[in-house]
Amino acid sequence: MNIPKSHPRYLSLQTREKLVNGFVNNLVAKEGLLAHGRGEAFDYLIGEKTTKSAKNAIKAAAYMLNQAQNSVISVNGNFAALCPKEIIQLAKTTNSKIEVNLFYSSEKRKKAISKILKKSGAKQVLGMDKKQSAKLKGIDSARRIVDKNGIFSADVVLVPLEDGDRTIALKKAKKKVITFDLNPLSRTAQTADVTIVDNVTRSMKLLVSESKKSGRKVTFDNKKNLKSSILEIRKNLERRAKNA
Amino acid sequence: MNIPKSHPRYLSLQTREKLVNGFVNNLVAKEGLLAHGRGEAFDYLIGEKTTKSAKNAIKAAAYMLNQAQNSVISVNGNFAALCPKEIIQLAKTTNSKIEVNLFYSSEKRKKAISKILKKSGAKQVLGMDKKQSAKLKGIDSARRIVDKNGIFSADVVLVPLEDGDRTIALKKAKKKVITFDLNPLSRTAQTADVTIVDNVTRSMKLLVSESKKSGRKVTFDNKKNLKSSILEIRKNLERRAKNA
Repeated sequence: MNIPKSHPRYLSLQTREKLVNGFVNNLVAKEGLLAHGRGEAFDYLIGEKTTKSAKNAIKAAAYMLNQAQNSVISVNGNFAALCPKEIIQLAKTTNSKIEVNLFYSSEKRKKAISKILKKSGAKQVLGMDKKQSAKLKGIDSARRIVDKNGIFSADVVLVPLEDGDRTIALKKAKKKVITFDLNPLSRTAQTADVTIVDNVTRSMKLLVSESKKSGRKVTFDNKKNLKSSILEIRKNLERRAKNA
Repeated sequence: MNIPKSHPRYLSLQTREKLVNGFVNNLVAKEGLLAHGRGEAFDYLIGEKTTKSAKNAIKAAAYMLNQAQNSVISVNGNFAALCPKEIIQLAKTTNSKIEVNLFYSSEKRKKAISKILKKSGAKQVLGMDKKQSAKLKGIDSARRIVDKNGIFSADVVLVPLEDGDRTIALKKAKKKVITFDLNPLSRTAQTADVTIVDNVTRSMKLLVSESKKSGRKVTFDNKKNLKSSILEIRKNLERRAKNA
């Protein structure tokens, strides 16, 4: 079905097609399509634009990545399907490693994701060699596997669209966690050190350009910033309800 | 992957697995998985429970179905995957016909949906015979096909999770429209006569039991009720933001 450019939600529908293509190409899990749908709903509620609070979080994230000793960008299927180029660019500008780390583990998907990352310019992709695997504590067996040279030894981890239990396990392992989560109320959003409440297709571009700047110290309070995000949604609902 | 029962969103994740199974069994389209994800987000925002305004809408829907001369329950893949038994029960208690009607049309999916409905006890499933097809006006060709003996000649149509353009076409054809839509701001929600802002896995059960009651006349204002739904979401956001 062709979506006309005049459609009020054209960009969102285009992004959805990227995910569906990612699914057809074995990058994205069935559950990843569902997760994207949830994201679409929250994106709709924030007005499908990068909000002021998201911009604040992006600045804090860029500073944190630039200050890190050993930062890792964790990549899942949705992230790889939506913005592979920006992942590589961010890894370069912040000197971060890239690790494929899946919630719904699958060797086939891992390989497909690694392939697209390499095609987009990644030199090394961690998380692919079972001999290098290590286990996070405080989380059930299927979901605790990480790379010894990647997330396991990182001081700063950027995780996209992450599960709450896993974010908590990363925090217990004393990592600084940066996340993209369109739901400001999720456990991941509430647990991370920096939560970017935005669609990665918009904010990864901004994060790349922000990370290129020299970077003065940023004061940032994630809880406070999340409250602003929630307020932005409430205001949006109010406005839409009036126009309904 | 086994979701532990202790997971705070266990029920929601179980429901998601029903959708994913429906996808594996050809009932559900890829886009249906995305649509369910959007629904999950709104369900989360209403607190994953049947709200007071949803209960009002369910009463109004039961009354409308019982008063109808010729009511039809329109079934898509998601609806069939989530609550096939309740669809059959509701058809029996309200003397409604059942029609398979898909947004992303596919003969294969139609057959799979008809099969599960018959397995769940449906005697007749409309929408399967091309010779009986008719066209709704005011909508593009791919999406206007309905059954002559079903939606085309119905006075009341219950549509789950419907597209905005199609709901408008049904209204132009002078049908009364009852819908399930977890987004109270959607065009479908705003266009229908009765909008049940609830998860079908909860509200179909309630609608079945409500339709068995003798049914006094219900006064119901959909726009006003939708404003209550939006208010419930705003209050929920406020409460959660406080507890966050």
